[in-house]
Amino acid sequence: MSNWTRHATWNGPIVMIGFGSIGRGVLPLILRHIGCDRSQITILDPSTESKHIADKEGVRFVQQGLTKDNYKQVLKPLVTAGPGQGFIVNLSVDVDSLSVMQLAHDLNALYLDTVIEPWPGFYYNTKLDNSARSNYAMRERLLGLKRKLGAGPTAVSCCGANPGMVSWLVKQALLDIASDLNIKTAIPKDQQGWAKLMKRVGVKGIHVAERDTQRARSPKPFDTFLNTWSVEGFVSEGLQPAELGWGTHEKKLPPEGRRHKGGCGAAIYLERPGADTRVRTWTPGLGEHFGFLVTHNEAISIADFFTVKAGRKASYRPTCHYAYHPSNDAVISWHELLGAGGKRHAKSHVLEENEILDGGDELGVLLYGHKKNAYWYGSRLSIEEARRLAPYQNATGMQVTSSVLAGIVWAMENPLAGVVETDEMDYARCNEVQKPYLGTVEGIYTDWNPLKSRHGLFDEKIDKKDPWQFQNIIWR
Amino acid sequence: MSNWTRHATWNGPIVMIGFGSIGRGVLPLILRHIGCDRSQITILDPSTESKHIADKEGVRFVQQGLTKDNYKQVLKPLVTAGPGQGFIVNLSVDVDSLSVMQLAHDLNALYLDTVIEPWPGFYYNTKLDNSARSNYAMRERLLGLKRKLGAGPTAVSCCGANPGMVSWLVKQALLDIASDLNIKTAIPKDQQGWAKLMKRVGVKGIHVAERDTQRARSPKPFDTFLNTWSVEGFVSEGLQPAELGWGTHEKKLPPEGRRHKGGCGAAIYLERPGADTRVRTWTPGLGEHFGFLVTHNEAISIADFFTVKAGRKASYRPTCHYAYHPSNDAVISWHELLGAGGKRHAKSHVLEENEILDGGDELGVLLYGHKKNAYWYGSRLSIEEARRLAPYQNATGMQVTSSVLAGIVWAMENPLAGVVETDEMDYARCNEVQKPYLGTVEGIYTDWNPLKSRHGLFDEKIDKKDPWQFQNIIWR
Repeated sequence: MSNWTRHATWNGPIVMIGFGSIGRGVLPLILRHIGCDRSQITILDPSTESKHIADKEGVRFVQQGLTKDNYKQVLKPLVTAGPGQGFIVNLSVDVDSLSVMQLAHDLNALYLDTVIEPWPGFYYNTKLDNSARSNYAMRERLLGLKRKLGAGPTAVSCCGANPGMVSWLVKQALLDIASDLNIKTAIPKDQQGWAKLMKRVGVKGIHVAERDTQRARSPKPFDTFLNTWSVEGFVSEGLQPAELGWGTHEKKLPPEGRRHKGGCGAAIYLERPGADTRVRTWTPGLGEHFGFLVTHNEAISIADFFTVKAGRKASYRPTCHYAYHPSNDAVISWHELLGAGGKRHAKSHVLEENEILDGGDELGVLLYGHKKNAYWYGSRLSIEEARRLAPYQNATGMQVTSSVLAGIVWAMENPLAGVVETDEMDYARCNEVQKPYLGTVEGIYTDWNPLKSRHGLFDEKIDKKDPWQFQNIIWR
Repeated sequence: MSNWTRHATWNGPIVMIGFGSIGRGVLPLILRHIGCDRSQITILDPSTESKHIADKEGVRFVQQGLTKDNYKQVLKPLVTAGPGQGFIVNLSVDVDSLSVMQLAHDLNALYLDTVIEPWPGFYYNTKLDNSARSNYAMRERLLGLKRKLGAGPTAVSCCGANPGMVSWLVKQALLDIASDLNIKTAIPKDQQGWAKLMKRVGVKGIHVAERDTQRARSPKPFDTFLNTWSVEGFVSEGLQPAELGWGTHEKKLPPEGRRHKGGCGAAIYLERPGADTRVRTWTPGLGEHFGFLVTHNEAISIADFFTVKAGRKASYRPTCHYAYHPSNDAVISWHELLGAGGKRHAKSHVLEENEILDGGDELGVLLYGHKKNAYWYGSRLSIEEARRLAPYQNATGMQVTSSVLAGIVWAMENPLAGVVETDEMDYARCNEVQKPYLGTVEGIYTDWNPLKSRHGLFDEKIDKKDPWQFQNIIWR
C-alpha cells in the first residue's frame, strides 16, 4: 500500500459532504494519494447506506444532512478543528454549492465540488422560467461570487469527470490536432492564447461524447430508475432545459432554441428537457449513436473559455455540448420516466460494481470541423479495469473520483487561487494525477460526420454544405 | 392429447409459407384443433433454422424461399395435391400477399395471412414517396383485389394479433361499454350498424395499446437487434411512415401529418418513421407510458369500418392507431438503429421462450373519450402461461398464433367469403376459438388521459378543452 504516489500532504480537517456513489469512491483515492491523518477526515451524509465503508476505512461518519438552516453550524466546527487549514469536498445533492463556497472562504478553507448545486426545490420549480432553471444562470451566479470573493482560498467549481476532466482533455486534444496539422505553437499561457489556438486549428465544435456500455447482470426491475451514478443528480439535470455553448459558425438557432438575457452570452438553451433531446455523435467503441443533450456546466464554460474576443463581441467560439449515451438501463429508465410525464419511479438504484456484468465507460471530447475532420480524445475504462484499480466504484464513478482527486491535489498545490473553474487549472498536472485511473487514454481520428447517419427515407431539414451545423446534429 | 377441442376438419393440403417465430407456434395449434392428416401439411422456408421442429412434429419441411419468379410453380403442385381443397397459410416476410392471394383464388384454395406484405425492396425504396410506402396504399390495393375477385374462396387478410384479433376485441369492448352505460342495443348485424353504435357510445378514438414486459435472462448483446417476434417485420414497418385512422373529432393535423390522395380517406400518415414517433397511452399492468406509433393495417381498417357515412362523407369516425411499447430490449435496439441513421445491426435475434426470464404481453384496445372515460379490453398473457399452453413460442407469439388459428377455423367454416378483413368476420366465434390461449382476457376502466402525463416544466402545445385530441397524445 505504501507504493502509491503521494501527491500532496494535508494536516487540517477534510470534510466530505455526501457519501453516495462518488464519495465512496473518492475516499480510498484520498487515503492513497494525500498524506493525511484519517482521523482528520469527516464524512457527512443523511443516509447510513454506505456507513460501513467509512467504518471499514477507519474514517468518521456522521449521519447528517445539510440544509439552508443548519449548514453553517454543522460545518464550522468541523472545518475549523485544526491544526491546519480545512478542506471541504462537496459531493452531495441538494446542498447549495455557492453557500458552502462562501462559508469555506469565510473560514479560510479550501473547497471543491463537482457541480453547481442549488438548495432543494430549484430544479423542479415550475414557477421559474427555463432560462432561470438553466446551468447558464447558475454559472453566472458562480462568476458573480468569483468576482466578489476575488483572491483567497482556492475553491474549485465543477471538478468531476464532466464538468471537470473534460476541460483538461480538450486542451491536450487541441495540442494533438495542432501538432498533427503541423501548426507550430507553444503551449498557450492564458485564456485568449488557448482560444486563439482553437480558432487557428479550425475547430467548429466540441462534443463531450460519452457512451456508457456497462450492462447489469440482471434485467432492470420495473418501476425502478437504474443508473451507474446518482439517480437524483441525473434526473434533476435531465429535466433542466437542454443547453449548449453556441459557436460562431452556427447559422441558425435550433427549434425551441433561446438566447439568455445578460451574462457571458456563450450559450443558448432549448425549451425542452435535455434527457428528451437527442443528438448525433460518435465514440470509438460503438461508433455513431444518439446521445442526449443533457445540460452540463462544461458546455458553457468550455465555450466561454475558448471564445476569442474582439472588443465586447466574440470573433470566434466553438459550439460545445454534452452528448451522453448513458447505460442502456438508464436509457430505458428515462423512456419510462418521460412516458409517465416526469413522474418518478417508486425506486431508484445505482448499479454497484459487483452488479455489473461487463462493459465500461468511454468519456472523451470530440473536436470536429477542422482539416482532419474529427478527433475523439478521452478515457476508455472497462468495469474490469475499474475493479482492479480501486474499490467501491464502477467505471463511471472512477472517471469522476479520479477527477476529484486531481482537483484536490491541484487546490492543495495552489491554495490561494480564489474561485476557479477547471478550464483555468493546470491541465497537464491534473491529467498526470488522474491518468492511472482512466484505463486507456487515447486520441482517435474519425471520418464520421452527422450527415453520414441518415437513411434517406424521409425528407430532413439538413444543411448539406456544412455537415457540422448543429441543425444536422440535433434530432427531433 | 385427444382432449383438445376439434374446431374444424380439413382433408386437403395445408401449405404454410414461412416458419419463423409465428409459423413455429401455429403448427402445434393446427395439429391440436384442426382435424387433418399431418402428412398433408407442407412448410416452406428459406432457412432450416427451425426444421427440427417440423421434423419433431412429423410434418414435411421444404427449404424453399418464394420469389416473384417461382411462387406459382412452387405453390401450385403443393396446393392442388388433393384430395380436398388447399389452404395457404402465409406467415412469411418478403412474399407479396396479393400475388399469393390471387393465386389461391385461381387454384380455388383458401388463404390467410397476418400482414399485407410486399415483395422485397418496397419498404426501403427511397424513390417512393411516403404515401406510396404506407399501409394505407397497400390496403387500397387489397380492397381493389377484393372488388376484382368478388365472391369465391375465402382469403383472410391481416389475421394476426394486430392486425387481426384486435378487430374482434374492439367489438366486444364496444358492447361492454354500451352495456355499462345502459345503452340498449342488439348486436349489430352490419358495418353501418357497428359504426353507428360506436358513434352512439361516444368513442372518440381507439389505441391498440400493447406493452410487452418480457425480460431476457441475459443483457442485450451490442450490435444485435433483439425482439420478441420477427426483427425483419418490425424493422420494415417501423421505418414506414407513422399512420393512423383519423377521427372526425380531431381539430388539426399533427406536425408532419399528411392526407393521402384517393382511397377510402379513413387515415393520415406522418412524414416520420413510426418507430421514431412516440404517443402517450395506457395499459393495465404498468399504467401510462410511451408507445410507438408504428403503422399497422388495423389502424386504418378499424377506423374505416367504424365510419358512419353521410352520403360520400364521413359523419363519424374514431381515431385509431397502434401504441406499441415493445420489450425493453427492442426499445434499446431501435434507439441504436435510429441513432446509426437506420443502419442495421450486425445480428438480429428473436427471444425464444427459454431465453425469457419473466414478464408477458398486454395487448388490447383502449376505447377512449366516452362517458366512462377510457376502457382497455384485451389479453394479459405471461411468459409462464404461454409456456404452459403450447410449445415453441413466447407470449407475444401466442397472441398471434392463436389469432391465426381462429382465422383458419373461421375460413374453414366460411369457405366462400371472398377476400375479407378481420373486421368483417364473426368476432364472437373468433374470440371463442382463441380465448384459451390469451391468458387473462379482461376489460378495465381507467381515469387516465394524456393530459395527466405532464410534468409542467416546459410549455407544451396542448388542447386543454379536449384531453383526447391527438395533439395531446403524440409526443415530439
